[in-house]
Amino acid sequence: MIDNLRSKLVLSEADLHDFARGAAFLGTGGGGDPYLGRLLCQAALQEYGHPQIVGLDQLPDDAMVAFVAMLGAPTVLLEKGVSGLDVDLALQRLQERLGRPVDALMSAEIGGLNSTLPIVAAARAGLPLVDADGMGRAFPELQMVVMNFEGVSSTPFVMVDEHLNSIIVDTHSAVRTEQFVRLAAMQMGLSCVVAGYPLTVDRARTATIPNTMTEALRLGRAIAAGRSSGRPSEALIEALSSSSVYGYALEVFEGKIADLRRTTEGGFNVGYATLESSRGSSRTLEIIFQNENLVARENGELRAIVPDLITVVDQENAEPIPTESLRYGQRVKVIAAAAPAPLTTPRALEFIHPRCFGLDEEYIPLEELARRAQASRDSTE
Amino acid sequence: MIDNLRSKLVLSEADLHDFARGAAFLGTGGGGDPYLGRLLCQAALQEYGHPQIVGLDQLPDDAMVAFVAMLGAPTVLLEKGVSGLDVDLALQRLQERLGRPVDALMSAEIGGLNSTLPIVAAARAGLPLVDADGMGRAFPELQMVVMNFEGVSSTPFVMVDEHLNSIIVDTHSAVRTEQFVRLAAMQMGLSCVVAGYPLTVDRARTATIPNTMTEALRLGRAIAAGRSSGRPSEALIEALSSSSVYGYALEVFEGKIADLRRTTEGGFNVGYATLESSRGSSRTLEIIFQNENLVARENGELRAIVPDLITVVDQENAEPIPTESLRYGQRVKVIAAAAPAPLTTPRALEFIHPRCFGLDEEYIPLEELARRAQASRDSTE
Repeated sequence: MIDNLRSKLVLSEADLHDFARGAAFLGTGGGGDPYLGRLLCQAALQEYGHPQIVGLDQLPDDAMVAFVAMLGAPTVLLEKGVSGLDVDLALQRLQERLGRPVDALMSAEIGGLNSTLPIVAAARAGLPLVDADGMGRAFPELQMVVMNFEGVSSTPFVMVDEHLNSIIVDTHSAVRTEQFVRLAAMQMGLSCVVAGYPLTVDRARTATIPNTMTEALRLGRAIAAGRSSGRPSEALIEALSSSSVYGYALEVFEGKIADLRRTTEGGFNVGYATLESSRGSSRTLEIIFQNENLVARENGELRAIVPDLITVVDQENAEPIPTESLRYGQRVKVIAAAAPAPLTTPRALEFIHPRCFGLDEEYIPLEELARRAQASRDSTE
Repeated sequence: MIDNLRSKLVLSEADLHDFARGAAFLGTGGGGDPYLGRLLCQAALQEYGHPQIVGLDQLPDDAMVAFVAMLGAPTVLLEKGVSGLDVDLALQRLQERLGRPVDALMSAEIGGLNSTLPIVAAARAGLPLVDADGMGRAFPELQMVVMNFEGVSSTPFVMVDEHLNSIIVDTHSAVRTEQFVRLAAMQMGLSCVVAGYPLTVDRARTATIPNTMTEALRLGRAIAAGRSSGRPSEALIEALSSSSVYGYALEVFEGKIADLRRTTEGGFNVGYATLESSRGSSRTLEIIFQNENLVARENGELRAIVPDLITVVDQENAEPIPTESLRYGQRVKVIAAAAPAPLTTPRALEFIHPRCFGLDEEYIPLEELARRAQASRDSTE
């Protein structure tokens, strides 16, 4: 147990709304419903008090950190939730397997439900929560985290289902872990609590994306503040553009959802949405998703692609809309943001290149795509 | 470590041949090729020496016993074998998870490969091996052991693959364990080493089938001795009939294999064999198997059914023939033996009733079926 920590964030109830909203944006359509996460979180904070949220610089080098998350299909996760006992057991099993205590928790992904679940876990366990995560967004698979890109082992990796059945996986590769875990998650009804990627703080300093809890709160607050001034999506884009983690963002499209197809395949929500421009033109935007939004193409032209962030938000209030909440006829904006730098290294792209998601395109950074689109518009005007 | 044990069996090289042959009979067509098991065993005994094979009465009440086995499809197990390191790691993971040493090993099933693998494991670990198993034969699924019928937890349950990936499962039901493990075994290429059902010796005394290693050796020796006198299958039937574990056996059929269909489904070798009588009549026998032989029907009439034992042996030398070695045109006998008493209790039949294997028939004990067949013959003569 690490004493005398000073929490860099204390999430008030208003903050929790903002935090969940910011995390929903960073979930890029996936990561589960942030509102459910917020409710779970509020209940845990009331019962167990606020966990300390700390920077990696506040922890000793040899302190042990691990992530806690929910894993499965967002649609199922939404219905089932967590009991809390599953979270406790996941942590207990991990510590038993490690033969040492875990000193602090972190988020696997700052997107959606998995940004708030670690708050619940930290509150219940009385452990500090690190202001960092493994993606700076949400991704569908376990090998898609900076820890893996930097060579940290994904295992021991623990899974617990609602009946408190548990599985501990040890492998030599995160891809193998993903295969075992995804299959077991199907057996667990596509809803389970997981804990994994245990690593020491000194490794975590270069193998996570720091300050993403702070970022989520900041983005959520920007949207809220923007609503007062009637410019919520612009405020969001400004906050993203001035972020040390993201640094660049733009509105890709504005329109209404004209076609929508969602199915559950291999334990994922997959499908696409087609948007028609609300500006009277014949422009359409197609978004393809696998839990998260993967690519946005306007009349066939690439506008944004994974690992950059693509999120659909409400046209009026810029509320981020998870994939499973998209509806025919919804009026929306599509906001894209540059991926955090650790997601675009050659080693990272081995695991999160567009082809890893079954897409044919190369990864072209958002800013470059915007430049090309502008040049194309300039040449036709 | 339990000291001063006196081994009740010391398996010489000749004994190993007999033991493997007896275990192949008890494998009722499944459990993997006994010859591969014997080779692994010989190598381990040469390198590590003979483990002590002891009765449960020789061990203290609170000593911890667990089984070690291979799990997967016999056809794949045959090709891949075990490295030994996988066996060691399975035991290590189990002990870590239990937080205490395992004091003795046992066989999950006395049939085929899984009768000899525990000898390898015990030799490598320097642990005594208990003269008992969980089935007194072979069965395809993890809930089909006396430990489960008697309420012993199947978990912690450990799996290790050839790459030394490992999985530890904890559940509240053996059926759930089977589901998790079978799915993971498919991911592991249908070949892995497992350890599970840890239990204390006082529980093991009523929750295993004792003396089955001794029985396997006895049956194998009977076949060998019978060959000298030209009556090997008769000698086998006599040895089974005088056994305190089985107590009744008969020759069900003699003929040649006229039709054979084998496929791998859901991780099992499934299929059927049809035999034509070699006595010139139009009688045929159909055998259906799922790894193990499940039912034998003569011209549609039930002759033997699971949990009773049904094994195909060579017509000349009574060598047991595993399912995967059946060939068109082979001349064989079909020998059936009564299941050990713990397999026919109401609680046991919840898990190993014919319907658990997809069969429509009720369980009718072999001896009763033989009586009916005799009565029918008497009435038509």
